[in-house]
Amino acid sequence: MMNITFVDILEFVGTFAFAISGIRLASAKQFDLFGAYVVGLVTAIGGGTIRDLLLDVTPFWMSNTIYLTITALALLWVMVFSKYLVHMNNTFFLFDAIGLALFAVVGIQKTLDAGFPLWVATIMGTMTGAAGGVLRDVFINEIPLIFRKDIYAMACVMGGFAYAVCGWIGTDSIVTQIICGISVFLTRILAVKFHISLPTLKGEEGNS
Amino acid sequence: MMNITFVDILEFVGTFAFAISGIRLASAKQFDLFGAYVVGLVTAIGGGTIRDLLLDVTPFWMSNTIYLTITALALLWVMVFSKYLVHMNNTFFLFDAIGLALFAVVGIQKTLDAGFPLWVATIMGTMTGAAGGVLRDVFINEIPLIFRKDIYAMACVMGGFAYAVCGWIGTDSIVTQIICGISVFLTRILAVKFHISLPTLKGEEGNS
Amino acid sequence: MMNITFVDILEFVGTFAFAISGIRLASAKQFDLFGAYVVGLVTAIGGGTIRDLLLDVTPFWMSNTIYLTITALALLWVMVFSKYLVHMNNTFFLFDAIGLALFAVVGIQKTLDAGFPLWVATIMGTMTGAAGGVLRDVFINEIPLIFRKDIYAMACVMGGFAYAVCGWIGTDSIVTQIICGISVFLTRILAVKFHISLPTLKGEEGNS
Repeated sequence: MMNITFVDILEFVGTFAFAISGIRLASAKQFDLFGAYVVGLVTAIGGGTIRDLLLDVTPFWMSNTIYLTITALALLWVMVFSKYLVHMNNTFFLFDAIGLALFAVVGIQKTLDAGFPLWVATIMGTMTGAAGGVLRDVFINEIPLIFRKDIYAMACVMGGFAYAVCGWIGTDSIVTQIICGISVFLTRILAVKFHISLPTLKGEEGNS
Repeated sequence: MMNITFVDILEFVGTFAFAISGIRLASAKQFDLFGAYVVGLVTAIGGGTIRDLLLDVTPFWMSNTIYLTITALALLWVMVFSKYLVHMNNTFFLFDAIGLALFAVVGIQKTLDAGFPLWVATIMGTMTGAAGGVLRDVFINEIPLIFRKDIYAMACVMGGFAYAVCGWIGTDSIVTQIICGISVFLTRILAVKFHISLPTLKGEEGNS
Repeated sequence: MMNITFVDILEFVGTFAFAISGIRLASAKQFDLFGAYVVGLVTAIGGGTIRDLLLDVTPFWMSNTIYLTITALALLWVMVFSKYLVHMNNTFFLFDAIGLALFAVVGIQKTLDAGFPLWVATIMGTMTGAAGGVLRDVFINEIPLIFRKDIYAMACVMGGFAYAVCGWIGTDSIVTQIICGISVFLTRILAVKFHISLPTLKGEEGNS
């Protein structure tokens, strides 16, 4: 018997949203079905895979077919509803933010459980949330989006701060995780709503 | 004393063909000899290396110099015969298909031996066969070829199906591996011969 | 109490130089502060991370915050002195060569200590020195520089030869490491000073 918790459902929603983002960008580049599926999968599981390699544990998706299945459903969804996807952009944005928040929490908690300090966990949480998108952009041969605009990965770093504050206050583990997730989610949502972004370095001329 | 089996010879042929493909694409981009060697090597051993990292075993090429040697021979080959390489395209295509088949079988078998289920093994077999080419294309700054056209990685997935069918029938391990390899090889050859390819997703307009 | 040795200082200088190179190239592509920081960090620690993954040990930067701190200082440095950076190019080149030499020595020694033969150690030393720059170039969507010009990674290979010669002569470990580092450093410096580079493969026409 499989028990599916509320957190599982959030994780599936996030996986679905991440896969959709990979599949849509791949299809915009005329990838075939296989290519679109792989890019969707890598977007969804790439960050967690790098995290697990660095933590030296078996990559999470190798013990459960659900991530492959969700990516297949995402591919089907894009094929069937391709004409209406633009109108769902707000929904996908929300799903993506949920995914980002949950992936960050999972990444941070898993790293702390493995005995690493919070600063390592924050990096791992950020990677869990954002590295899949970097791999996606490398595969479609674009400069990774998260390096250029928007508060995205930085929202995961905020989640790390939330952990630190909760640890200082002394809230219990579940409460800490919820506060962390909400911090990531709100940072992401508010940054987009109020067009908050990080400054760009002034490029030097002709020196590289 | 080293015993070289028929399978070893096939593996060397495949490694040689994969290295050649990397070196030729690198030289088309004016890479220097070192760059061409590295891209050839990564094409040949990249897929198996990622597989071994995911399986948490020592990367296969770290215990045998043969892969570096074969890549060096491939580099020499391209330097000496560069004018005639175009006329050898059919031969290289055949060698590449042999390599793909054998890499897929090795990847699947190694993963099963490590105790993972067949669906994980199929992914690993596909990665062993196709991920080197993806790394090659990332290094030469092109969109990975296997995401855009031809049945290539999908041929490895067919090898996974062949394993499943053989397991269901109950053939012994050697026979299963042979049937798997032939399935991958034939799928690849027939797909190219009859111009079979996967459909492309209809890209949405202006939404990414 | 932390004891900082002369080797540590060289390593910090190298890390700083590598991070600067990543941050400058990222800022030339209009990356935001986060993106520039990540690219700087990956340039500095990427090679050693891949090495540690292949050796199956915990990535070195996960047990010491110094690498993140140095990258932050490098970012600050670029922000404050951006106008004067061009005039510091010779200094950075020197720092980078020091970093390359030291990273190569560290990579080779760590691999030998893990029980691998020298040829594996030479590859690992080369990766420690040069793979971070490859990741940097993939992230900024350029063809990796080290594949196209200059003796860079090859200087690390020279370090491996120096190890072999020292082992044959029978010098002790510290002397061997110093000679290796000097070999890498001098190879790099002399190659640039005398415009020595590897030949390029003659690309075939229209075959890729």
